[in-house]
Amino acid sequence: MCCTAPMSQRAAKKAKLDKPSKLDPLALKKRLKAPDEILKEVRLLAQELKSQPELSRTLSELGLLESCREVKEKDAHGVLDEIESAIFQVAVTILNGQGFSYSVPSRAKGNQLYVPQLDRIVLKDSASQRPFASTATCRRAVITTRILQLVHELCVKHIHVTKRDLFYTDVKLFEEQNNSDSVLDDVACMLSCTRSSLHVVASEKGVVVGRLTFQEDGDVINCARMGVGGKAIPPNVDKVSNVQSDAMFILLVEKDAAFMRLAEDRFYNHYPCIIITAKGQPDVASRLFLRKLKLELKIPVLALVDADPYGLKILSVYMKGSMNMSYDSTNLTTPDIKWLGVRPSDLERFSIPEQCRLPMTDEDVKTGKKLLEEDFIQANPEWVKELQIMVASRVKAEIQALSSFGFQYLSQVYLPLKLQEGDWV
Amino acid sequence: MCCTAPMSQRAAKKAKLDKPSKLDPLALKKRLKAPDEILKEVRLLAQELKSQPELSRTLSELGLLESCREVKEKDAHGVLDEIESAIFQVAVTILNGQGFSYSVPSRAKGNQLYVPQLDRIVLKDSASQRPFASTATCRRAVITTRILQLVHELCVKHIHVTKRDLFYTDVKLFEEQNNSDSVLDDVACMLSCTRSSLHVVASEKGVVVGRLTFQEDGDVINCARMGVGGKAIPPNVDKVSNVQSDAMFILLVEKDAAFMRLAEDRFYNHYPCIIITAKGQPDVASRLFLRKLKLELKIPVLALVDADPYGLKILSVYMKGSMNMSYDSTNLTTPDIKWLGVRPSDLERFSIPEQCRLPMTDEDVKTGKKLLEEDFIQANPEWVKELQIMVASRVKAEIQALSSFGFQYLSQVYLPLKLQEGDWV
Repeated sequence: MCCTAPMSQRAAKKAKLDKPSKLDPLALKKRLKAPDEILKEVRLLAQELKSQPELSRTLSELGLLESCREVKEKDAHGVLDEIESAIFQVAVTILNGQGFSYSVPSRAKGNQLYVPQLDRIVLKDSASQRPFASTATCRRAVITTRILQLVHELCVKHIHVTKRDLFYTDVKLFEEQNNSDSVLDDVACMLSCTRSSLHVVASEKGVVVGRLTFQEDGDVINCARMGVGGKAIPPNVDKVSNVQSDAMFILLVEKDAAFMRLAEDRFYNHYPCIIITAKGQPDVASRLFLRKLKLELKIPVLALVDADPYGLKILSVYMKGSMNMSYDSTNLTTPDIKWLGVRPSDLERFSIPEQCRLPMTDEDVKTGKKLLEEDFIQANPEWVKELQIMVASRVKAEIQALSSFGFQYLSQVYLPLKLQEGDWV
Repeated sequence: MCCTAPMSQRAAKKAKLDKPSKLDPLALKKRLKAPDEILKEVRLLAQELKSQPELSRTLSELGLLESCREVKEKDAHGVLDEIESAIFQVAVTILNGQGFSYSVPSRAKGNQLYVPQLDRIVLKDSASQRPFASTATCRRAVITTRILQLVHELCVKHIHVTKRDLFYTDVKLFEEQNNSDSVLDDVACMLSCTRSSLHVVASEKGVVVGRLTFQEDGDVINCARMGVGGKAIPPNVDKVSNVQSDAMFILLVEKDAAFMRLAEDRFYNHYPCIIITAKGQPDVASRLFLRKLKLELKIPVLALVDADPYGLKILSVYMKGSMNMSYDSTNLTTPDIKWLGVRPSDLERFSIPEQCRLPMTDEDVKTGKKLLEEDFIQANPEWVKELQIMVASRVKAEIQALSSFGFQYLSQVYLPLKLQEGDWV
């Protein structure tokens, strides 16, 4: 019984016969230099990043403050102040004889704006009145009051709950979770703060491992000593403080299986990095966590996703946010993520065997073509090129396709070579 | 702006008017004694458990060894030995002129047996030949050989991969992941060892927090210092060693949101326990982890699940395993889990407001009735009673329904009272 090498070599040779390939995937290991040499390109990227002037331009710098609205992360005291002043405002209006009414910013698509200079979606300034003394808005005004009250309680008690918990606090009033959820987003916009500032959190599903220590609710967490399972990313990023790291980059991994491979091989000990996965579509907690790391550590983020439209969709959620949370996009997004792999051009370059490539469905191709029109893709010609290869070849591949060259090909050859060659776009 | 109390009190009073309720949910807090007093019942349960003779009866003690088959957890060396002897066996058969053939135990439903003395499903002794020199089985014989070879490689290298990785190692041969997956289960039965012994693991999704320390791949993990996010349960339980704890019980939680509440409130500091959730349907890693804790620590496991058929289904997976992994049931199951809550009888007892109770669908009722016939329910008259209440009332409720009495009602009143009264079945 022997290891896979002979089998895979055969597969690789076969692939070579099938079509002209640029590299012999199994000979690539010989090209690898010493770890310190391998990291040269990453070091340059990191220096470049650190020497960049702060790019976080604000709406006021762009002269958009009047016509646009952005929310900010606020601490419990900040939120309490906002709630109290909102209620005070209502009281004043009542005393003026104008009745009990909230002014609620519109979150409709027509009120959303993509700002290229920010590379983010923001809300325009349209808002609507929500008077209590109107049959059309009475119930919603009451729900708004109740949500404001509940958020006030959360901030006073310094506790976090889920949207589901919030709903169950007053099912008689809310009736459907949709009602409490959507008013919660309204309230975030009204108070100009992020939804997570309201102490209402999403359930977490992300995991982190690698060269990172931080404090979480007072506990010191060392992510380099978290075995192979890693540390669960906390649902409430405001409990994370004192972030420290000697990592040179953050490796953002789409899939659980790749994360496990890298964690078990302790990839971060060979190439100092922080490895994060949200196991597919990123949840809010993982996005907030990534953003926090990027902001505090100022190191590059390299992404390892499947070579399919879904992999790019995931990158787009990290980079520019999702539509229904657009009011919160500043605080959720990490622009400037480098696409390390698996890129459509890698399939040829690494001679991924024919049988490990999957045909794209019509739906896939449609999604791919739609992505080609999106601003965040068009902003980067290299991404356009890759996506064009994908759509033209109608072929996709998963990260795991690399397993065809051996289980540890990903951690021992593919990724080190990518780093060594600075092969990201 | 005030806290929820007045609102909830009103709701509670309303519920009281609606129907005769036994307890005023908000007055219950006054009944609570000091933490040490509260834990008296749990202490008795733990003592009872520890004084029980080892109940893990074996097939041979039951005289079933000849007619039944169970698999065991084996370390890498054990698996390598088994593979080598399986291949040796094949070589002998070839030399004897009987040709290249594997003897593969049947995993079909007809070959499964529920053993009440073990409270587990085991495999009966039916097996089939898988000769290479037959058009019907040739491909499957080749796949079996390839899987044996790959597992051999994993055990030699001491690395773990997912089923998906395994599939991608030789897509040309396997064609569909079904093929490599099902042969992997065959191989586990052939070698009489668990699937996780083969170093093929499922992706983890469980989280743990509380009074527990263990070593994971050499790293010391202290689950009492894991912030509010907790520690991700490792995909490979064989890397977990040196389990230590001063916890008095394990609290098994169905839902993420309840886990978060208990973690943030540091419930385990008030009532020494280990809190585990698999976020819904338990994955293999979480089941293995729970079983390991129970075996090593010999402390009671108390379950907090939704009061619906799905909550019981989840308990059944923990306690007696799922059908398609029945050959592995011994090593995956934790019998003797106590059902703490939320039980159908709690809905009346704690006066859960009418609007927080959900009507059961016809599908729910069907599932409930089917569960009533299952052995693991019938073995416990109290469970039967609870399930009968659920089916008769056609009403279900989620753990979060307790939020209607305040966000921290779960951690500050409901659970302490349950513990104090020894209210589990």
